[in-house]
Amino acid sequence: MLEPERILRLEDDAVVLLDQRRLPGSVEEVRCGSAAEVAAAIRTMVVRGAPAIGVAAAYGYALAAAHGEDLDEADRVLRTSRPTAVNLMWALDRMQADSSYEHARRLHAEEVERCRRMAAHAAELFEPGTRALTHCNAGGLATGGYGSAVGALLAAWERSLLERVWVDETRPLLQGARLTAWELETAGIPHAVIADSAAASLMAAGDVDCVVTGADRIAANGDTANKIGTYSLAVLARHHGIPLYVVAPTSTVDPATPDGRAIPIEERDPREVSDRFPARNPAFDVTPADLISAIVTEEGVHRAPFAGSLAGASAVA
Amino acid sequence: MLEPERILRLEDDAVVLLDQRRLPGSVEEVRCGSAAEVAAAIRTMVVRGAPAIGVAAAYGYALAAAHGEDLDEADRVLRTSRPTAVNLMWALDRMQADSSYEHARRLHAEEVERCRRMAAHAAELFEPGTRALTHCNAGGLATGGYGSAVGALLAAWERSLLERVWVDETRPLLQGARLTAWELETAGIPHAVIADSAAASLMAAGDVDCVVTGADRIAANGDTANKIGTYSLAVLARHHGIPLYVVAPTSTVDPATPDGRAIPIEERDPREVSDRFPARNPAFDVTPADLISAIVTEEGVHRAPFAGSLAGASAVA
Repeated sequence: MLEPERILRLEDDAVVLLDQRRLPGSVEEVRCGSAAEVAAAIRTMVVRGAPAIGVAAAYGYALAAAHGEDLDEADRVLRTSRPTAVNLMWALDRMQADSSYEHARRLHAEEVERCRRMAAHAAELFEPGTRALTHCNAGGLATGGYGSAVGALLAAWERSLLERVWVDETRPLLQGARLTAWELETAGIPHAVIADSAAASLMAAGDVDCVVTGADRIAANGDTANKIGTYSLAVLARHHGIPLYVVAPTSTVDPATPDGRAIPIEERDPREVSDRFPARNPAFDVTPADLISAIVTEEGVHRAPFAGSLAGASAVA
Repeated sequence: MLEPERILRLEDDAVVLLDQRRLPGSVEEVRCGSAAEVAAAIRTMVVRGAPAIGVAAAYGYALAAAHGEDLDEADRVLRTSRPTAVNLMWALDRMQADSSYEHARRLHAEEVERCRRMAAHAAELFEPGTRALTHCNAGGLATGGYGSAVGALLAAWERSLLERVWVDETRPLLQGARLTAWELETAGIPHAVIADSAAASLMAAGDVDCVVTGADRIAANGDTANKIGTYSLAVLARHHGIPLYVVAPTSTVDPATPDGRAIPIEERDPREVSDRFPARNPAFDVTPADLISAIVTEEGVHRAPFAGSLAGASAVA
């Protein structure tokens, strides 16, 4: 497992980010010397994954405070760097009361600890011999350490409950093919990358026992925004009678968002899809709560109806 | 529209193929001087698309006959170049009786004529303002001219029934993003390329009125093998109450294959998906007949139950 401080860390004069755009071919770090530079790194996906960008924003804000930057402007530029993941807003809200390096680092450590707790809960959902399918990267890279969905896979593997993992490559930016496959290789977990559109036929063949994903924002009713393609998997899983588990820390749950319709969906540069023809590039989709078998947070396994159960789970940092 | 002889043609001493691996960035031709070279070009997807590889095989066989090659060996190497599309076997069966250049060229012309006829039938399924989604390339490139699914879109466009086309990029080889987008651009039809996994959220948003695809083999009962991801779209379309239309010439219908379980599915080199991690690369999937709203051949619009209707439709060349 990647050490949390290798994924992102706060130094005296910079937020240092492992450049996730270049992994696994090249392992490079990007140093951000201001809140604006951290925001640019979040926007361009040097760092990505809802919990990880929350931690990056907290680090950026702490850096801005230490350097005497305008904190209203630092908050604004970080908060608006990406629209869908609510962890960004959650982390910045928490940094208002205490912008110290210590507080930001504690927030990071607590996100990793949440991952370990939710992974232990999620592992209870696995039976021996499970062949799981995951989408995008909800690994240590996405959370600042250990991972949410991949954390659940690690915990299931340690308990000898996991046989193999199907890794959706996750177009257009290939977070599955690049990042999740790399993390699973590091952990020694048998895996195979597939084209996103191959998931359905694997399900039809009986080769998928469950789908496990992370989340970018979970509305109060359980509707969940996650990487584009998650909703597609949810429909396919339901058609084939396969459970879908969403694994995410409570920092991803947004009580202020009543349902999926209220979640803003980022449209990214169409050139990520095609640099030659017109294209559409929604970065996320929304899975209605009724297609989700369980939402796993550090507080436990939540089942439908989610509203009451999620309202009782909250993250304090 | 691309002229059929630009896509593939038979010259005195070679089968000349437009190199579909390099389009649209580079427009190059590959000259094949023997049946074995044609087979290699089919295998490596210089030419692809079920009807087009049938025509290419017919040309390769005619070339072999004219050059005094061992015809049993020519038949074998062409017939086994790819396993799923039945048009390959269909075309070679027809060349046994008459291996002349004239016969092979007539077979090509008749495939294009079938496309025009089925497109006219398929256009009857469109209503004004239709926003269609298509997968892979079932265009002129795939059929040797005009196209099957894309032919239907061209006919609907000419009749002012089509508003726009969503083009699945179609990983791993991007036939949608490269070939279909190029054909639609040439025809002046509004289109946008999307990641394959974005189709579901467009359907949920009400932005897709129908899904139109080609086919590589249609079993006697209507079960249809087509590019990986077609089955995924079929399940998603059913979930959203959107019709799926399969458009293919009768040369793609295989009365000898009772149902989808009997269709061999090609597994291609996993390095097409990932050159760094383990991968699975099924090139096709099978859509059960009950998820298909209509199969359109040059004989007309076939509705479920398909068996009787398809048995009455046959291609003679």
